[in-house]
Amino acid sequence: AKSFKIAVLPGDGIGPEVTDEALKVLQIVASKSADVELKIQSYDFGGCAIDATGEALPAATLQACREADAILMGAIGGPKWGVNSKVRPEQGLLALRKALGLYANIRPASFASDSLLDNSPLKPSIAQGVDIIVVRELIGGAYFGQRKEHSIAPDEDTAWDTMIYSVHEIQRITRVAAQIALSANPPLPIHSIDKANVLASSRLWRKVVTETLQAEYSQLQLDHQLVDSAAMIIVASPKKLNGIVLTENLFGDILSDESSVIPGSLGLLPSASLAGAPALPSSPSFKPTPGLYEPIHGSAPDIAGQGIANPVGTILSAAMLLRYSLGLEKEAKAIEDAVRKVLDNESAGGLGLRTKDLGGDVGTTQMGDKIVEVL
Amino acid sequence: AKSFKIAVLPGDGIGPEVTDEALKVLQIVASKSADVELKIQSYDFGGCAIDATGEALPAATLQACREADAILMGAIGGPKWGVNSKVRPEQGLLALRKALGLYANIRPASFASDSLLDNSPLKPSIAQGVDIIVVRELIGGAYFGQRKEHSIAPDEDTAWDTMIYSVHEIQRITRVAAQIALSANPPLPIHSIDKANVLASSRLWRKVVTETLQAEYSQLQLDHQLVDSAAMIIVASPKKLNGIVLTENLFGDILSDESSVIPGSLGLLPSASLAGAPALPSSPSFKPTPGLYEPIHGSAPDIAGQGIANPVGTILSAAMLLRYSLGLEKEAKAIEDAVRKVLDNESAGGLGLRTKDLGGDVGTTQMGDKIVEVL
Ligand SMILES: CC(C)[C@H](C(=O)O)[C@@H](O)C(=O)O
Ligand SMILES: CC(C)[C@H](C(=O)O)[C@@H](O)C(=O)O
Repeated sequence: AKSFKIAVLPGDGIGPEVTDEALKVLQIVASKSADVELKIQSYDFGGCAIDATGEALPAATLQACREADAILMGAIGGPKWGVNSKVRPEQGLLALRKALGLYANIRPASFASDSLLDNSPLKPSIAQGVDIIVVRELIGGAYFGQRKEHSIAPDEDTAWDTMIYSVHEIQRITRVAAQIALSANPPLPIHSIDKANVLASSRLWRKVVTETLQAEYSQLQLDHQLVDSAAMIIVASPKKLNGIVLTENLFGDILSDESSVIPGSLGLLPSASLAGAPALPSSPSFKPTPGLYEPIHGSAPDIAGQGIANPVGTILSAAMLLRYSLGLEKEAKAIEDAVRKVLDNESAGGLGLRTKDLGGDVGTTQMGDKIVEVL
Repeated sequence: AKSFKIAVLPGDGIGPEVTDEALKVLQIVASKSADVELKIQSYDFGGCAIDATGEALPAATLQACREADAILMGAIGGPKWGVNSKVRPEQGLLALRKALGLYANIRPASFASDSLLDNSPLKPSIAQGVDIIVVRELIGGAYFGQRKEHSIAPDEDTAWDTMIYSVHEIQRITRVAAQIALSANPPLPIHSIDKANVLASSRLWRKVVTETLQAEYSQLQLDHQLVDSAAMIIVASPKKLNGIVLTENLFGDILSDESSVIPGSLGLLPSASLAGAPALPSSPSFKPTPGLYEPIHGSAPDIAGQGIANPVGTILSAAMLLRYSLGLEKEAKAIEDAVRKVLDNESAGGLGLRTKDLGGDVGTTQMGDKIVEVL
């Protein structure tokens, strides 16, 4: 039997509630497969870790994450540890990404079920069929470049950050994008985003993305969009960016969040942050890759403890975990199918369940239970 | 009579076509006012200037712009002067902004007429009533910070840009935002955008915006949004950002373009770039301010010369020119009212005219003529 270690970081607010449901789903998947064993253990991370240890990312948590085959996270943060606090939950997340080398952030924005179309802020004709996968570089650029705070010499009067990229950093994220593009049939087009008409780092980005794909994946379609133009297209005609949206850290932060509101609720969407190429059956180097998986929503302190959070984003993150880190494509697909079934309208053969964020009154555990039941 | 010099930069593609219509409108406004005289002259700028002189911003054009009370621009650029050309039209625009100290970019996103609601990619319930004015810092940040290209020593392998802000740069743009906020009754709320949970320049931004408003405009409402969150709100519930969206150069580039697709056609929207506080009747220092006015759309080479471009964005830019640079509020308002009348449906007492971008077949000059007629 293949045995995998999963480190769970439930975090703050609704984090523990939604991870509980995803764990139920992972456990049922493992129990149904004779040759997969999951060893699951939880660790403090984020605000709760600050309260318990004074640190957002305690050494024991980091160690467990290093040893795990994959990490499942809930959500972190809350008003208790706001912008003016000395130690903040996000610092733990940035430190964890950097420590584990999680350079590839993967954020799909698509409809888990067509029945959700009405929840989109976009007109149905514009939203229907949107299927964007943002591949964001996660440990470079302005997030990790040198910076200087105000009041520090020289030039006490200014503050600055450096948007910096090396050839190597751009190559490796381009390869991840290419392998995800190739895992679809037909392969997905790649839309690379930059601000090459102004920024030097963007000119390097465009050059390296172009050369890497030409040299190693010449079968893939590539186009380039300026980030301001991409921000317009995502609202006005998002299907033009169907496929892979490949971009650097800061632009990826903005564009992945922008596209994530198209499917109608942040509660629905998963994400993966990988330290290497995903373990895809179609990829040449098909082997497990460490990764951190989390829903894209926050800790929602206002609804924490009420049992009304949507667990679907975390459950779909667990599916990505199985696919990208453990190479269990079949099991990942089964979860995604079960989620679709539970969300689909009755007319489409589904159960039509809706949590509060989608205008319904199904609770967190009830949603998780139904997905387990369908599985 | 007050006499004003207006430098016109028609530019490339549809630029000359749309500026022609705006000039007709300015001329009729001037001819109707006994004490306003406009001296209008055109200069080469952008791609056509590159062809004529080798430079995007010829010295004679820059000189004329310096001497003018205000500048009206069409649009620049085209495939002939693409990313790989040595001299590019955008460089001229960036150089002109810097040379004239045009640090305050003002970009309203609202419906010129409610009859245009159906053209929005957003559902009518979400789009109706959107009224956002983006105030973007235009000559600081990553656009003008120190940068290093790839292949240049040291670290040939990397390229970088610097996002840098000084206290002074943030103070002056905050004051422009405040004065525009105060010109409305009741005053508009200010939503300041940054990425203060990651970037040092954003932490300074947040601090200076907060302190400047507290010290000088404590009557104004202020809140802070992270740029990723703002990018979501603009799609999901844009009315939450009604009022002023105040932000730095790069974030402003992205967010102003993102919000500009809400009103349904880029052809409708104007912009102003100012070298000081606008000349508003409500502002304490009510005096003419130099400024550059342009529609937000590009040069659209694919439809150039066909007489089908929408001149409304340029005509509304001319209205902003009268208001912000010349202090002619009444005349500005008259143009805006005329535009609304021409766009409004017949049921609302308007003419219901639609150019091609809005699904109609009214031509560029016909649209301009009708607006002149109504005036
Ligand atoms: C919490 C914050 C630092 C983080 C980021 O900007 O990367 C978040 O917005 C995200 O996208 O995961
Ligand atoms: C042409 C380009 C340099 C410019 C910018 O990014 O500022 C444009 O996108 C704009 O917003 O006016």
